[in-house]
Parts: sequence; structure tokens; C-alpha cells
Amino acid sequence: MLPDSDYKKLTAPESVAFVGVTKRTGIGSINPLEVLLKRGYWGRIYPVNRQGGSILGYQAYTSLLDVPEIPDLAVICAPRDAVPELFGQCAARGVKIVIITAQGFFDGDERGRLMQEELLDMAAQNSIRVLGPNTLGIVNNYHNFCTSFINFINPVKPIGITCQTGTFYLGASQLCTGIGILVDTGNTTDIDVSDVLGHLARDPRLKVINIHMESLKNGTKFMEAAKDAVPLTPVVIYKTGTSAAGSIAASSHTGSLAGEDKVFDTAFKQCGLFRAADVEEMIDLNKAFCTFNGIKGNRIGIVSISGGAGVMAVDACIRYGLEIAALSKTTFEQLNELFPPWARCGNPMDMWPASMFNGYQYSYRRILEAFMEDPQVDSVICMTGSFLDKEEDFLDVTGVIREIAGKYPDKPIVVSTCGNRYRDYEQELEKDNNVVYYFSLERAARALSALYKYHRLIKKKVYSTAIPVSPGQNPAGKILAGKAAGNLEQTEALKLLESCGIPVVRWEKAKNIEEAVSLAEKIGYPVTMKVISTDIIHKSDVGGVRLNIGNPQQLEEAFTEMHGEIHRRQAGAKIDGVLIQEYLPKGTELLIGCKRDPQFGPVLAFGTGGVFTEILNDVSLRILPLSKEEFMTMINETKAGKILAGARGTTAVNFDMLTDCLASFAQLVMENPSISEMDINPLLAYADRIVALDARVTLGKVN
Amino acid sequence: MLPDSDYKKLTAPESVAFVGVTKRTGIGSINPLEVLLKRGYWGRIYPVNRQGGSILGYQAYTSLLDVPEIPDLAVICAPRDAVPELFGQCAARGVKIVIITAQGFFDGDERGRLMQEELLDMAAQNSIRVLGPNTLGIVNNYHNFCTSFINFINPVKPIGITCQTGTFYLGASQLCTGIGILVDTGNTTDIDVSDVLGHLARDPRLKVINIHMESLKNGTKFMEAAKDAVPLTPVVIYKTGTSAAGSIAASSHTGSLAGEDKVFDTAFKQCGLFRAADVEEMIDLNKAFCTFNGIKGNRIGIVSISGGAGVMAVDACIRYGLEIAALSKTTFEQLNELFPPWARCGNPMDMWPASMFNGYQYSYRRILEAFMEDPQVDSVICMTGSFLDKEEDFLDVTGVIREIAGKYPDKPIVVSTCGNRYRDYEQELEKDNNVVYYFSLERAARALSALYKYHRLIKKKVYSTAIPVSPGQNPAGKILAGKAAGNLEQTEALKLLESCGIPVVRWEKAKNIEEAVSLAEKIGYPVTMKVISTDIIHKSDVGGVRLNIGNPQQLEEAFTEMHGEIHRRQAGAKIDGVLIQEYLPKGTELLIGCKRDPQFGPVLAFGTGGVFTEILNDVSLRILPLSKEEFMTMINETKAGKILAGARGTTAVNFDMLTDCLASFAQLVMENPSISEMDINPLLAYADRIVALDARVTLGKVN
Repeated sequence: MLPDSDYKKLTAPESVAFVGVTKRTGIGSINPLEVLLKRGYWGRIYPVNRQGGSILGYQAYTSLLDVPEIPDLAVICAPRDAVPELFGQCAARGVKIVIITAQGFFDGDERGRLMQEELLDMAAQNSIRVLGPNTLGIVNNYHNFCTSFINFINPVKPIGITCQTGTFYLGASQLCTGIGILVDTGNTTDIDVSDVLGHLARDPRLKVINIHMESLKNGTKFMEAAKDAVPLTPVVIYKTGTSAAGSIAASSHTGSLAGEDKVFDTAFKQCGLFRAADVEEMIDLNKAFCTFNGIKGNRIGIVSISGGAGVMAVDACIRYGLEIAALSKTTFEQLNELFPPWARCGNPMDMWPASMFNGYQYSYRRILEAFMEDPQVDSVICMTGSFLDKEEDFLDVTGVIREIAGKYPDKPIVVSTCGNRYRDYEQELEKDNNVVYYFSLERAARALSALYKYHRLIKKKVYSTAIPVSPGQNPAGKILAGKAAGNLEQTEALKLLESCGIPVVRWEKAKNIEEAVSLAEKIGYPVTMKVISTDIIHKSDVGGVRLNIGNPQQLEEAFTEMHGEIHRRQAGAKIDGVLIQEYLPKGTELLIGCKRDPQFGPVLAFGTGGVFTEILNDVSLRILPLSKEEFMTMINETKAGKILAGARGTTAVNFDMLTDCLASFAQLVMENPSISEMDINPLLAYADRIVALDARVTLGKVN
Repeated sequence: MLPDSDYKKLTAPESVAFVGVTKRTGIGSINPLEVLLKRGYWGRIYPVNRQGGSILGYQAYTSLLDVPEIPDLAVICAPRDAVPELFGQCAARGVKIVIITAQGFFDGDERGRLMQEELLDMAAQNSIRVLGPNTLGIVNNYHNFCTSFINFINPVKPIGITCQTGTFYLGASQLCTGIGILVDTGNTTDIDVSDVLGHLARDPRLKVINIHMESLKNGTKFMEAAKDAVPLTPVVIYKTGTSAAGSIAASSHTGSLAGEDKVFDTAFKQCGLFRAADVEEMIDLNKAFCTFNGIKGNRIGIVSISGGAGVMAVDACIRYGLEIAALSKTTFEQLNELFPPWARCGNPMDMWPASMFNGYQYSYRRILEAFMEDPQVDSVICMTGSFLDKEEDFLDVTGVIREIAGKYPDKPIVVSTCGNRYRDYEQELEKDNNVVYYFSLERAARALSALYKYHRLIKKKVYSTAIPVSPGQNPAGKILAGKAAGNLEQTEALKLLESCGIPVVRWEKAKNIEEAVSLAEKIGYPVTMKVISTDIIHKSDVGGVRLNIGNPQQLEEAFTEMHGEIHRRQAGAKIDGVLIQEYLPKGTELLIGCKRDPQFGPVLAFGTGGVFTEILNDVSLRILPLSKEEFMTMINETKAGKILAGARGTTAVNFDMLTDCLASFAQLVMENPSISEMDINPLLAYADRIVALDARVTLGKVN
């Protein structure tokens, strides 16, 4: 997080210099000073332009060095090639916060990348914090401040925003519904979302935060910032660049399952962020969070103009995990008298038959009031018609709904309509900022569901203490000491598991056929034989696994056959011997894996194991570290977990045993940074025993 | 499908009687005659009101019997209790098409249900076709005709609509964007969607059809109508009442997997319908189908105001299965000169750097034209900014885009913008009906994807001939003859499979321990023993299955233990003996199942079998009958299919063998209507053999 003073200088400066600002003015002139003046900024402004003279009534300094004070903030608004010199002026004048708007750095060619590196060096040497390059900078609508060079439409809403593209900055009026404070980090060379998130979350004027994220350098820092922010203010994130995930080669089980976007998704969930599937979800959640301060539960009442729309509303509620409220007896008693004798009165309430006898306005008011009074209803979805011309609109209940909403501030009312005057309805209904209109019932239910999740679950979430780690100071550290990068020999991998207390099947390593026979005798038949080779990733694929070998003769045959088949399928693979293992009866095949993600660090995977892991794709992911309860949640999320719990007459597996195993595995990876990837597959689970049959460990370089 | 003359009388009558019409007029008067007159209908109109006199300048007849001709259509628009008498007048006067608007029939109380039954009887006796009750009836904007009693906003669009609620009728201006012809079937007692779909599809004025479906009586009739309609006109369906599926008890494997909504979903897919997830998807697809007559492929060009928005567009395209076009060399050569040397020029094309040197309008035109000329681009998504005040909008390229779209009618251009003047942009862009605006890039990509699917895949789909069936005339018929409803005894079920050529494991039925030992000897050890009991649905759950029994002593022990365990777990279950089967080595466990759905008839299920079928939930469904190719598609859709195809070094299973088995199973169920549910689980698959281990058959009553 940025120090308070830096954040203030960046977003609410008392003085600002526009360095390299153009002297052109008027439409299309790309002049940020002109835009700022239109916003009514009251701080001190210093234009810098080498030609001197004046700009828009302000004296233009030929150099920043001539400016009479050190400005809180400098905005360098010249094209790329002029930036280094102007940045030098900032350093020389002692400016500590600099925004660089120009494109053509990391987003451009090789020269641009070099220039950006040089700027970063200069910034570090002079303790300057940089926003950008390739950014429109800041909007602070509570400070009449804005660094945009385009005079965009900029409605004020209590929303904090960080983004990595000008599209979000300029389009926030549509994509977020408006702006309170916005920070565009552009190429994000220095100041990033994690630097400002905590400040936005602590700002009492902001009711929700939106993040547009395209890339992230430090996932751990982001998760810390997000976990800090979320209990204070809800955060909605729109992650782009998701399809790039497909381009990352999958080098192993865990690798292919923990595709990049899934890791982001996992991190967002772990921090309690709302991930918007599209900008409309972000807009919808913003409207809910900006309007309603809370919700007591998820029991929804539905007041509908028609039975058909009531059915749609129920579908929508169920889709988003809401409950259809069971109305209290009083409500029924009060409302029954409005309806003809043949009509069914309930929830959803099709109020049309009542309206035919008592008028639409009167019936709507009576019904909605009864719902709001009902202690078994936490929120109401209203559906009405917006299909009449304004002059003939005897169905217009916007006034009724707003009035009732005003009386019950703790029970959110959301409205959807049918008919093409819906925009008029939206405008009317939202006038007092106590009702939200949604285009569809699906969107209404989705927003209520988020409101419920935030106020009843996420805000209260307590993060359990992670298990402490002591890198290197562990038995595994000795095994790994001095090992080269690459795949660890398999017997070493098994020893690694044993070193941290994970139960491993009885095994021996044999170099030749005679040793194999003798060691099999020692273990006891039946046995399994597996090739040992760091060249072979998937042993089954090349015939390198032989199960259930019953006697020495079978073993000798299998040994010869196996070597022949491997030679045919992967000629040249170096074979270091064979592993002889106790052959075990059928159990549930599990996978535990971990991959060190470049952004987020170790990502743990748990799920269905066996050779078909990728096809079955039954895996739960989490960013480490985790508490024991979280390991349990991972297990419960998978189909494997449901089978382990004792489905269909089978005996349940001891889950404590399994969470201990996950914890040991996680600890092992966290304490040994040289492990870049590791998995146990299969881990066999029985009612009273779990046992690892195979492990694969890839070592990377330790920084 | 309704006969042509009936459809014409219903939707484009030359004469219409409003029977029981009110004499009230003005706002809120619920007078359909008044609404009709405002639409400029030119046919002959006969109001019927027992008070006589005149209504809105028309003579009111005191009885329909006094009307001077038999009207094409009678609309009964009186409250429920007056309907039977007025319907009697329709019958007496010889009217053949009647619309009943009143509520309170099947949608009301017991008396209403009885009244509706009586009306249906009267209709059948007099060969009258009925629309409703509980309907607003018809809109035909090409005939200035409409039976609504509310004067709703009604824009004309080339869209055919059927619905089951007034919400869709009155709200179609929003929910469908407008109406060409609309039929509200209300309670759908007689005329239903299948009666009108073919007529709408054949109407050259309509470009797309929308179906709002809440319930369906005859799924087979609907599928026939849909398969007939879809190659003529694209159909988008919005199915409601989906969550009701949860209420149907799952009585068996296939039952629980083929939940009601999944069956609807399966049927829709089989017919090539677009199922809209929400009304917005319906709107989006309508806009695309109403604007573009085709699309050549799915290679998309992206012209974007910013790099960030380009990334979003790529994500959206990938999400909806579109390809990012690889631009041709010529395009690059033409466009490179627009950009500064440091900028990357490609697809997506971030045109901002070009605009800084050459102006926005000029750059946008040059780039979009090059994309449209490029033979490797099938369609273009344009992203621009709508964030400037109208007076200052130097970025407004709506004119450029419309003009270029006009020159290339075969390449759809869709546009999304950021910034809150998006509604102005939408209106401007869609003026010439050759460009479509979408609120988000996700919605733009989804619509293009539907356009591509329809024109390149669905429209050309040839439905393979279903295998002919001859009920009763098959070997299985003899086994089933005279059998009571309920679960078939298991050995009978196995015989049923054998009768139609499905390979079954070697088996014998033993009544007691001695028989068991002797029959096991005959089959050869190892064997499997399973309890035979029509009371027990899931044998594993009560300990009724013992695998891999090696010798007579083990068999005797297992026999005693098994009986003890069943007694403990399901006391009172009637045991009819045990099944002794050859014990087979591990193969891929599959499931083939079938359930007779009340709407759609036999639904076939194929997927992963074994005891954890429900948890694994890897099943493909299809409504029968099917061709052999379709059985193959089912297999390929499942994870089981991917494993059978020879994943991870295993030998592939012979798929012909498997499709033959599916075909025999399907034939068996279709030819024997007494089978209400049936499944084989597991069906074991090996490289060169498939074999059924267990079957369950439930017989129902044959109508």
C-alpha cells in the first residue's frame, strides 16, 4: 500500500505540474490542463512547455526547474521520446509522484522497453513513485481533480476504480455507472492496484470498488491487499486476458489443470472478490452496493404483474441461490381479500387478478406493503409493466414502489419491467436512490445474491492463521540440498514424501532383473513394477507400469517386456532401474499436486487421481498457505470428496488423515522453494489408510 | 400444424366478433375493440354485448347468433363465469376459431379446471379450435390486427413470437425488440406452439422466431415442428419453469440424471434451437438475425479504440468459439503506414496510436475498410468511445461505420462502445439496419457466434433417418407379454438384453447355497454373486454384491454374509435367489439408460457407469429415435468416450460395437412401450469386447 502522504499527493494533490503540456486548446487538442480547468480544480497549477508564454491564462514555465514550489504531482504529458528528459527534470526538482501518459514503452517496441527500464532505474534512484506510462492517470471527483487529456463525460458515483486501460477510465460512466476516485495504472511499472486498494477501501465516501485487471506482477501482494480491503468495502473485479491461459504449455498434471485463469479465479475467490463475468455484472453489483447498505437474509418475496413473470422470477432466484420466502400467515390473511375466490395467492404473488377487482395501483401498494411488513421476507423483487404510452399509463407504480422503499430502508426492493418504456421506469424508480431497476429478473436476482453474500458471508469471514513455515529447516531440505534443476529421480521423490510423514507404499529400487526378483521376495508378492527414468513424465503412456505381478517368473517376463516396450515407444529414454512396490487392492485414486505460479506462488491441487486425471478434471485449487479448515473445504468441493465421504454404501474415509496429508504436502512445498512442481498420483485412499504410490517432483532455480 | 385456413382465420381474420365485450372505453377500460380500432384494422368487426346499443360507433349485437355472417374468429372477452354461455353461442353460430381471454380456469381453482374441461369437450364436439383461456391472443402487425385489451406499445419487427404469458405479449417491445406476428397460447388447452411454428417459419416477412415456453404437453409434436421450422427460420427459445425440475423425485440412475430441464435442453439442442439463458440473449440474437442475412465464417477482425478493449474482445470471441482472424499480408502493408514506428499493428488492431498521427475518423475508416476487404476476415467487431459530449465528439465514427457496412452487405459489422452516450451511438449506428450495436463485447461475440452456427451449421443439418420400429413384433415382446407393472426380476432383465443381441456376462440363477456352488463350478471361478430382489434398487447399497469369489468355500461364506447384511440393512426385502456371474477383470464401466419422459417419450442416456454414476454425472442425453451417427456423437460427448478412445496409452475400444449396442438398446425400448425405465450398469468395455453385467427394467402401464 502507498504511504498515506503519497496516496494523497497522487489522488488529491494541492499542486500539480503538467510537464510537456501542449499549447493547443479546443476540441481534439489532447490538453489535460484544459480538461482540469473545466472540472473546477482549486489547487495550484504549473504548466511546463519549452516555448514558455502562457497556456489558458496560466504562465507556462520553460522547465520544471523554474516552477516556484515542488509540486505534489507531476504529469508528464509529452510524446514518448520527450519523456526521459522531462522525467529528469522531475527528479532534479525533487518531485516524488510522477504520472507518465505517453504510449510506446512496454506496450511498444524494443526501444520503448529499454526506455521504460531506464525510467524505472531513475525513479528508484530518486525515490520517485511512477503511475504509468500509457495511462490517463487519476480522476478524483471529490477533489475536482482529473488528469485526462480528453474531456470525457464523468458522472459522480461512490465508486473507487482501478484499471489498466483508458477504455475503463473514459468509459467508466457506462462500464461502472460513474466514478468517485479512479486510478489508471496503465503499463503498471510501479504503482499498481495493491498500492491503492486499501486507500479506496478506507474512503468513507466510496461504497464499492471496481478493479479492471489485465495482468498482475505480484499476486501475493494483491491477495494481501484484497483480504484487507474486502471486509471494509465490497470489491468487484473484471479480469481480462483470460483466453491467454490457453497458451501456457501444460507440462504435467497439475500444470494442465491449474491453467492460468483458474489460478486467478482461485485467488479472487479466496479473497472474497466478486468476479464479474462481463461489464454488466459489474454495473449490476455497483447499483446494488451503492443503493443498499445491507440485507438481512436471502428469503425473497416476488410481486408480479403476471403468473408467467412470477415463474421467471422464481427461476432466477433459484439460479442464484436465493430462497423463495414462505409468507407468514398474517400476510396471506391480509391479502386474500384482494383476490377473486378462484385465484391463488402466494409467493410469487401474481397480482393481476387482484388488480382486476381493486385497481392496479391500490393492489400493488397493499401487496408490496404486506411483503415489506412480513418478517419472513428479506427483500422483494417487483415485476411490473412498462408497455403503455406515458399518457395512458394507468399501471405506473413507480411512485408507489419508491414511497414504500423509503419506509423500509433495511429491505432492498429491486424492480424489473417488461415493455419498451423501461428506461423511463428505470429513471423514475432510481430517483430517490432507494430502489434499483434491472433490465431482467436474472440480473435482479444475481445482484441480490451478491448483496446477500457480501453482507452475510464475505464481510464476516475470518481468515484462519496459516501454518508457519521455516524454509530449509526441515528434513526434506537435506534431501534437496545441492540438487540440480529438473525432474527429481523417483525414489528421491518418494523419500521426500516419507521425510514429511506422508505414508508411502512399501518400495525398493532394483537396478537389474536379479535385484528385482530378490527385492520382490523381500516385499512379498503380488508386486507392481514401474520404470525409473527422469526422461519419462507419464510412465503409463510408454508401458512403464506393470501391476499385480504374482511370482518371480511373471516378474522376469514383465521386466523384459517393459524394457522392450519403452524402447519402442520412447527410444533413447534413460532408464535408471525399476521400482518394485507392494501391489495394493483397489482404493479411491486421488491426486495431490502443487505448482509454483509466477504471480501467486504455490497453488495446491486436490482431486481425482489416476491416469485419467486430465479427462476427469475433478480438481479443487487453492493458493497457499491455508488453514486446516480450508484443506477440508477443498476435499468437500470435489467429486472425489463426495465418494470419500461414503457414497453408495461404501465406508467413509478418515478425512483427518487426508487433511493432515494435504497439510504436510503444503508445508513441504512452502518450506522448500526449490520445488517448482510436485504431485502425488495416485494417492490411494481406504477407509483406514491413505498411501502414496507415485510422486513426481520438478526442481527449479531458487532465486 | 394448424391447417392453413385455420391459421389464417386465427392470425389474419377477415372478420372478427368480440363476444362479451365491455361498453366502457378510455384508459384502463380493458376494451379490446378500442385497441383494435387504433391499429387500423380493415376487416369486419362485430361487437357482442347483451345490452345491445352501440360500442365505439359499431352496432353491438345482443347475441352472436344475430351477427350477419359467421366470423372467421370470435374473441370471448368476458369474465370467467360468462364464458360457457358465450362459447355456446360460438358453437351454435358455427364459428371455428375461438380465443378465450379470461383467467381462472386451469390457472385458477377446481371449478375453473372443471369449466375448462367442459369447454374442451364442447370444442371437440363442434370442431372448434381454441386459443387460451388466459391469453391476450394475437398480434399481426402485417394485418393491423391485435386482440389485446390493453393498448400496449407495439413496434413492428420481422419477428414471429409464441408465448404462454401476457408478459411476453405486452412486453415484446422490450423482451423481443418488437413484433411481426405473435400468438399467446395462454393456458394452451388446444392450439399450441407446434400448431403455429411451421406457419411462422414459412412467412417470408419474418426473419427470426421467438418462443417463450413454460410447459409443453406433447414433446414429440414439438420436436417435429421445430425440426421442420429451423432450416427455414432461426428459432430462439426462452424456457421458464426450469427450477421446477428439482421437485421431481429421482427414483433411479437414469431418472435422477435426466432431470426434467435437462430433457428439454436435450430436445432443444437436437432440433437446432437457440436456447436463450435470459431475455437479453434473445434480444441480442434477434438483432443479429433481423439485420444480417448470413456470415461466411467465424474469423473475426477486431478494430479497437484501445489495446485494453482489444484484449476484452479477444476474450469474448474465444469464449464463444470464434476465431481471431489472421490478417492477410496486404492488410498489414496497407495499414502499417498509419502507425508510428513503435506501434504493433495486428488483430486485434489498437488504432489509437494511428489516430494520434492521422486523426481518429481517417484512421478508423482506413482500418475498417482494409478489414472488410481482407478475404481472411468474415466479420468485424468494432469498439469505439461514446464518452464525449455530443458537441465535442471528434471520435464519432458512427457515420463511417454505417457507410462501410452498406458497401459490404455479406460481412456483418457489430459495434460496442464505452462511455455513457452509448444509447445515442446505438440509435445512430442502427439507423440503416446494416450494423448492430451491443452493450458489451461479450454480447457482440455471442450474437456473432449464433449467426455463424445458424448459417454454417444448423441450417444445413440433415437429420438422419431414424431406425424403423415395430412394436411388439420382437423377441423381447414375448418376454414382456403379460408382465405386471413394476420392476422386472433381474434374470428376466438379462434375458431381455440377450433377446436383442446385447452381450451379457455368463450368468446363472441359484435359489440356494447348494445350487450356487454347483452353478459357480459350471461357470468357472472366479465368480461374482449378486442378490436377486425386485425390492432392492441399488444392490451395492445394501451389501448385495460380492466380487471375485475364488472357490466354493469363499462362495459359501459370502452367501451367508450377504444374506445377513441385507437383512440388517433392508429388513423385509424379498430375496428371490442369487445371480452367479463370471468375474471379469477391470474394464471401463459404462451406463446405458432410458427413461420414458412424459413430454418427449424415450430419453436415452449414455456415460460413465458404476456405483458412483450420480456423483460423476458424466452422461449424454438424447431423445429417441436416433441414427447411428448420433449414437456416436453421444459417446464422443462424454468423458467416458474420451477414455474409450484410447487416452493415456490405453487401447481404444471398438466404437462400432458400442454404437450397435446403443442402437439395440434404443430399439428394444422403442418397440416395447411397456418399458418405462431401463438401464444397464455397468456395461464393461474392453478393447475387443463389451459386456453387460447388470440390468434394471421397470415396466409401466401401456396406454
